[in-house]
Amino acid sequence: MRIVTDIENISLKRSVDAGKEEQRKAVREIMGEVKRSGDQALIEYTKKWDRAELTCLRVKEEEVAAAYNHVEEEMVSIIKEAAANIKEYHQKQLKTSWDFTQDNGSVLGQRILPLDSVGVYVPGGTAAYPSSVLMNVIPALVAGVQRIVMVSPPNENGILPSAVLVAADIAGVKEIYKVGGAQAIAALAYGTESIEKVDKIVGPGNIFVALAKREVFGDVAIDMIAGPSEIAIIADETASAKEIAADLLSQAEHDERASSVLVTTSILLAEEVSQEVKQQLNDLPRKEIAEKSIDQYGLIVVVETLDKAVAVINTIAPEHLEILTKNPYDILEHIRHAGSIFIGRYSSEPVGDYFAGTNHVLPTNGTARFSNPLNVDDFQKKSSITHYSEAAFKENAHKIAKFARLEGLEAHARAIEARYDN
Amino acid sequence: MRIVTDIENISLKRSVDAGKEEQRKAVREIMGEVKRSGDQALIEYTKKWDRAELTCLRVKEEEVAAAYNHVEEEMVSIIKEAAANIKEYHQKQLKTSWDFTQDNGSVLGQRILPLDSVGVYVPGGTAAYPSSVLMNVIPALVAGVQRIVMVSPPNENGILPSAVLVAADIAGVKEIYKVGGAQAIAALAYGTESIEKVDKIVGPGNIFVALAKREVFGDVAIDMIAGPSEIAIIADETASAKEIAADLLSQAEHDERASSVLVTTSILLAEEVSQEVKQQLNDLPRKEIAEKSIDQYGLIVVVETLDKAVAVINTIAPEHLEILTKNPYDILEHIRHAGSIFIGRYSSEPVGDYFAGTNHVLPTNGTARFSNPLNVDDFQKKSSITHYSEAAFKENAHKIAKFARLEGLEAHARAIEARYDN
Repeated sequence: MRIVTDIENISLKRSVDAGKEEQRKAVREIMGEVKRSGDQALIEYTKKWDRAELTCLRVKEEEVAAAYNHVEEEMVSIIKEAAANIKEYHQKQLKTSWDFTQDNGSVLGQRILPLDSVGVYVPGGTAAYPSSVLMNVIPALVAGVQRIVMVSPPNENGILPSAVLVAADIAGVKEIYKVGGAQAIAALAYGTESIEKVDKIVGPGNIFVALAKREVFGDVAIDMIAGPSEIAIIADETASAKEIAADLLSQAEHDERASSVLVTTSILLAEEVSQEVKQQLNDLPRKEIAEKSIDQYGLIVVVETLDKAVAVINTIAPEHLEILTKNPYDILEHIRHAGSIFIGRYSSEPVGDYFAGTNHVLPTNGTARFSNPLNVDDFQKKSSITHYSEAAFKENAHKIAKFARLEGLEAHARAIEARYDN
Repeated sequence: MRIVTDIENISLKRSVDAGKEEQRKAVREIMGEVKRSGDQALIEYTKKWDRAELTCLRVKEEEVAAAYNHVEEEMVSIIKEAAANIKEYHQKQLKTSWDFTQDNGSVLGQRILPLDSVGVYVPGGTAAYPSSVLMNVIPALVAGVQRIVMVSPPNENGILPSAVLVAADIAGVKEIYKVGGAQAIAALAYGTESIEKVDKIVGPGNIFVALAKREVFGDVAIDMIAGPSEIAIIADETASAKEIAADLLSQAEHDERASSVLVTTSILLAEEVSQEVKQQLNDLPRKEIAEKSIDQYGLIVVVETLDKAVAVINTIAPEHLEILTKNPYDILEHIRHAGSIFIGRYSSEPVGDYFAGTNHVLPTNGTARFSNPLNVDDFQKKSSITHYSEAAFKENAHKIAKFARLEGLEAHARAIEARYDN
């Protein structure tokens, strides 16, 4: 792993894949076709792209029940425990309506309600990600969303991975469809005969899914557009090189464009970690991906002081941050930008990816400067409440009318004055 | 105004202007030019589009001081009072960091901080909108944003409207630039010699501004893309036709594509309102706009019951909703989708547009189903905190490793196991 000491020009921003023109065109065509032909289009695209011949898009209860036969009992109970932890953490985020009464008798407030319906996209492909099901579904459920719809592309036999179905069942999803890609996003946004449209779409996907989400943005809400992800670790001489190397590699194995960065005050640790990464890479099943990621986007930055380390972190605004120093809370105080922060050696990133309770859907590629981890707020919405009292009105009506006229909006002023003489 | 009784097919969705291809091309050119030439590009575009020859983009303190000479003293104190009301309401929304300790000693939480910097776009043109300055700036200020930058196109003499400068000064803005259009958005997103880039851009603008915001979305955060706006009023026979008509017209005068809808159980009221609208239209300064809006998008819906009226409202999901019935809180309980809700006859919409304290930046065109009024959350961001205890780790490490392996992520499992034998 490359070791540098120049912190002047560190930027890990990688370009976000905006898609090729033919991909954007393909997505727009798919969207149009689903709007026109509904279920029929979904079935045809699923045959074309996923090689599955479906007669029914919706997953049946029996299929969910059968999925349990293919998942170890111990694994089921681990998924249940993870779900309970995620639920506990997210419940602390739940906001409720509030109001307050002013001296003049007026009441102002915020009415906070769950969204009516949410669609969760779960990617298909070679691997199954039940943890992603939990992380996207549970915050919506905690918010009180009544209708949560899951979509995911089936395999050639027309079925979804058992672990995904079990996770969905444990999380409490009752409505699952076997459809993926841009066609699934179109169905969620505009509806078909069998899939009623939703208000918001969340969950990661390939470039076609990302482009489709951009396309429907505005007609429905979407979560963030995820970019390449990263981990940054801030460590002093008290940290373990072996543990740090293992954590860096756990990020690197995700994706060739993932970025793993160590910022440390210890040149000795820097060299040890570099060695450890090399050694641990050797027998990793996903060695090829991890190696490319480390070579291209891995970096060890040696700095003189922890203050400088913090400055580097705030510049990167990493998706994940581990603080492995003697006094981690002294560091935390100065961290401004990071999606999910892990404190101390027992908070290895995978603890949060799977189990502790915090969400693993996080702002990537520097967007932690202005974006949030997926959270319950994403599934609640607010209405402002104004109940102006007669006293407040009488005191302030002429001011409001005057303000309206300053902006040239006479009808606004007259709406106020219509109450004067009535 | 058209009166209907068929509530089956009411949809007020109007298409959002996505811009013509040549507009999109122009915006991309402007973005590129500002990235390349910085301030020079801003100065040239301002000469070209706003016919102002500037030597300095930034508004000087003396200019702000001078602006007070052109705004009535009474008006200044009204703006100050409005600002104080807006501040009071938004302070109730401020979230602070929190954490909790689990039985096993682990600490989970959320760190909540203000964004570092925010850019507020204030439209130019014939009218000045100081209220818009207050509504966009004050929530950011309450959130604790340290750097708030305002941009607005100057007039031919190279100056900004006095009322806008006074409102900015009252709200507490210290950094104002005379630049508008797509070039202002590019400067805020990517920075120039004199304008440092920001993390989030808010505020309404013309089609070029909207397209530019779409373009920079992802590199920086943006607020919503505003569409045509609307008011809906739910009223029974206790409401005043004169007041309702005045309120409908206050929405209609904004924009030919604005929509004003009354939903009522009283056919008599429906007819009276229709008459009143016609009459009140006569001597409105913005009659032409209001008349077109009412003709195209105005509607009176007569329903049999208030339950049906509520159903119509929830279908429309209006930006503004006034409840003018005998027992408004009985209605409120069933309202699911509305941006800002005004209760009772003294809560005429302009009360909220200017003065009461709630925000007037609201989700339009049906997006109240899933979007929020501009609020303090929009200017705060969250980081998740995980401090896993040794006890929690020992109890759960093998579960976490097993979960990782289920997903085929071996390096994740090994990151956990690296802590076993250290």
